[in-house]
Amino acid sequence: MTLGYRGRAAWSLLLLTLAAPTASPLKLAVDGQTVVDQLTKLATFTDDPNPAVTRILFTENDMKARSYIKQLMAEAGLKVREDTMGNIFGVLPGANPNAAAVGTGSHCDAIPLAGMYDGTVGVIGGIAALGALRKANFLPARPLEVVMFTSEEPTRFGLSCSGSRAMAGVLDAEYLDSRRDENGTSYLEAAAAAGYGAGSYEDMLKGARRTFSDLSYFVELHIEQGPLLEQQGQQIGVVTAIAAPAALRVSFSGDGGHAGAQLMAWRNDASLAAAELALFVERAALGTGSPDAVATTGFWDISPKAVNSVPREAVLEIDVRDIDGGRRDGVVAAITAEAASIAERRKVRHTVDLINRDPPATSSPFVLQAVRAAVSELGYSSREMVSRAYHDSLFMAQVAPTAMIFIPCRNGWSHRPDEFASPEDIARGVKVLAHTMAFLAGNARAEDRQEL
Amino acid sequence: MTLGYRGRAAWSLLLLTLAAPTASPLKLAVDGQTVVDQLTKLATFTDDPNPAVTRILFTENDMKARSYIKQLMAEAGLKVREDTMGNIFGVLPGANPNAAAVGTGSHCDAIPLAGMYDGTVGVIGGIAALGALRKANFLPARPLEVVMFTSEEPTRFGLSCSGSRAMAGVLDAEYLDSRRDENGTSYLEAAAAAGYGAGSYEDMLKGARRTFSDLSYFVELHIEQGPLLEQQGQQIGVVTAIAAPAALRVSFSGDGGHAGAQLMAWRNDASLAAAELALFVERAALGTGSPDAVATTGFWDISPKAVNSVPREAVLEIDVRDIDGGRRDGVVAAITAEAASIAERRKVRHTVDLINRDPPATSSPFVLQAVRAAVSELGYSSREMVSRAYHDSLFMAQVAPTAMIFIPCRNGWSHRPDEFASPEDIARGVKVLAHTMAFLAGNARAEDRQEL
Ligand SMILES: [Mn+2]
Ligand SMILES: [Mn+2]
Ligand SMILES: [Mn+2]
Ligand SMILES: [Mn+2]
Repeated sequence: MTLGYRGRAAWSLLLLTLAAPTASPLKLAVDGQTVVDQLTKLATFTDDPNPAVTRILFTENDMKARSYIKQLMAEAGLKVREDTMGNIFGVLPGANPNAAAVGTGSHCDAIPLAGMYDGTVGVIGGIAALGALRKANFLPARPLEVVMFTSEEPTRFGLSCSGSRAMAGVLDAEYLDSRRDENGTSYLEAAAAAGYGAGSYEDMLKGARRTFSDLSYFVELHIEQGPLLEQQGQQIGVVTAIAAPAALRVSFSGDGGHAGAQLMAWRNDASLAAAELALFVERAALGTGSPDAVATTGFWDISPKAVNSVPREAVLEIDVRDIDGGRRDGVVAAITAEAASIAERRKVRHTVDLINRDPPATSSPFVLQAVRAAVSELGYSSREMVSRAYHDSLFMAQVAPTAMIFIPCRNGWSHRPDEFASPEDIARGVKVLAHTMAFLAGNARAEDRQEL
Repeated sequence: MTLGYRGRAAWSLLLLTLAAPTASPLKLAVDGQTVVDQLTKLATFTDDPNPAVTRILFTENDMKARSYIKQLMAEAGLKVREDTMGNIFGVLPGANPNAAAVGTGSHCDAIPLAGMYDGTVGVIGGIAALGALRKANFLPARPLEVVMFTSEEPTRFGLSCSGSRAMAGVLDAEYLDSRRDENGTSYLEAAAAAGYGAGSYEDMLKGARRTFSDLSYFVELHIEQGPLLEQQGQQIGVVTAIAAPAALRVSFSGDGGHAGAQLMAWRNDASLAAAELALFVERAALGTGSPDAVATTGFWDISPKAVNSVPREAVLEIDVRDIDGGRRDGVVAAITAEAASIAERRKVRHTVDLINRDPPATSSPFVLQAVRAAVSELGYSSREMVSRAYHDSLFMAQVAPTAMIFIPCRNGWSHRPDEFASPEDIARGVKVLAHTMAFLAGNARAEDRQEL
């Protein structure tokens, strides 16, 4: 992790505070419906029929989506490049070719049976923001870039945010190699088959590394994935922190048997151990007494899948999040202890693996200031809020000062086919993003901003 | 269902009681190791690596297994025929070409990750029994036949015993058509692709129909799939009844959401409703106070399968069995009521479908008498017992007087890769089967048996 940026950021905050009021107001043409049409086209690259979207890393539909994103970047006048991890960049060059860039972006992969707005709004919306700045003849001092991150969702390799983890230098080669997909394929093999990768994990990870010397700020646009903005009638969420996520995998294993012949007294049914643990996971989150603590048993694999067989194996993946990292760790510890106690009582074997336990991220005060200035310049209503969902920004915050911009989504729904954000809300989000990035990059033609 | 046979069976019982003592003892050469070698070869036709066996109806491996079974039947000197449902018969002609046959047989399909003895011992063992009778120059008065039933296991179409249900005339065309596999393929399409079927469901079902006028008795050899014979050191189980099975499918459906953003208070997690119901299923069986009542949640499908998504759909398939049909129905009713109550409390939608609820079968006293006579003639130890597992005999009992012969299996294990029966136990089972069928068919060369 690069620690050097915080001092420089504080210095810049002072400059921005002085400089912002004198900048000439931007007039950007952003058409929400065009963005929605592009999102709709992107949604057709899916393994399940629309309205559902299922798009898994480096599958045929993911490759089609990547081609389409590169096409949109090129059409917006951006310079396209890709890195060894499969992250795709669209760059609008700045007046100062040596300055570190201002980045935005998000992801286009989608978990099974998800919707068409999660992540994609931050990629296609990011392209639209840079395209609008270019059309407005805004010449940034720093380069602007929009990135489509590789695999924010953990579906294929059980690892979230592989692209941004690699950029932040917090992805271990050996660990990455251990995450095989359901066919036993490694990440390196899958990347190579998709035309990415490098000869080794080390080179692949090195090829994706970013530092504060080439990325000065990062800001991500995303749908809220919660109901607060909609419920309170606010247009923009200014994200001050990202909750600390942890994930664990618990396996129970019993002796199975025939559902007719194996009498109840002799059974050690792995699925019933799993059922007890999933109910405990719910109680553990509720038991904190805090609405910010959430715990979910999202993945269940009970086998053999046969109505006439006593389940022999049960694998659960459990997700625990909280804005308070310590309280989150308490819930993880309680679940781990309960798994052992259930296994003992039900006479099943068990294992618990911690898949990840990432630290929470606090947004950069400087980038937040830029977001607030953009919102105010545009005259939108807003609220400060925390993100309970995982985002690539969690890792980008370890590279450069980072914040996020949320827009409302219907009923707070996400990760489901009826996920929805309106063209109007999307257009507002894109404009706030563009204004924020313009602030952060500096306008090369404004004499009073050249010191950035 | 043919009701006419019961009177005739009672009349035959009297004859057998008079005739049996005068029959000359059979001397049959049965080599258990040869049968095991053939079972081992059959086990290589599997979708999962041995020792596991996975063999699903009309898949490539099922078709290879069918070829091998037809080859073994031909090598044993049996006449091979197949019916429209894909049931395969090997026939040893009798002296009286018009007499109704004496049948044996079982199944060769295997649920995912099962073993190599369930069902297969009754098919390859049945071929061995008929082959041994033929080699011993036993000329039966009635024809003898061994059948490999189509799809005793419910894996592909969620319907058990499709071959024997069709033989018994208790399989409805419309219902069968409604049972699609996971790709939406119908039974008729799958059968046609495998070279079976007929132009319509009606013709296919008609083509497989058996009645008492062409099948006089049926007896099935099978591993016990429970521990009683092994625990009590007995060699043969004489099966007096088959427990009454029922199966139901319960679906819960909630609103899903993002595992981070959807706070606990707003969730209606379908997987937790499923977890509560599965634990209730266990309590309901235990609550009867009878060791004969068993209930299993063998099939779980929780979706979307994503660690960062609140489960939206949960489908459970629940199997309930008891030797007491009324008590079994009480457990089914309690589970159905509990599903509704959980759905209401957890604010999820739900459906309950009864997949099947078959009546229990009582073995024919006449066929049991023949089995007991065979056991006694061979000098084996035995016990009377009920079968808690489902068998094709459950439906064959609706065609003709039926009973079953069990042999021990290690630890009572079944439906798992380490399922095991010894060559010695298999040889004993085959001999009891051969002697029983010889009794039931009548020896054409014994003057005192010609009245059969
Ligand atoms: Mn997501
Ligand atoms: Mn996302
Ligand atoms: Mn079975
Ligand atoms: Mn069986």
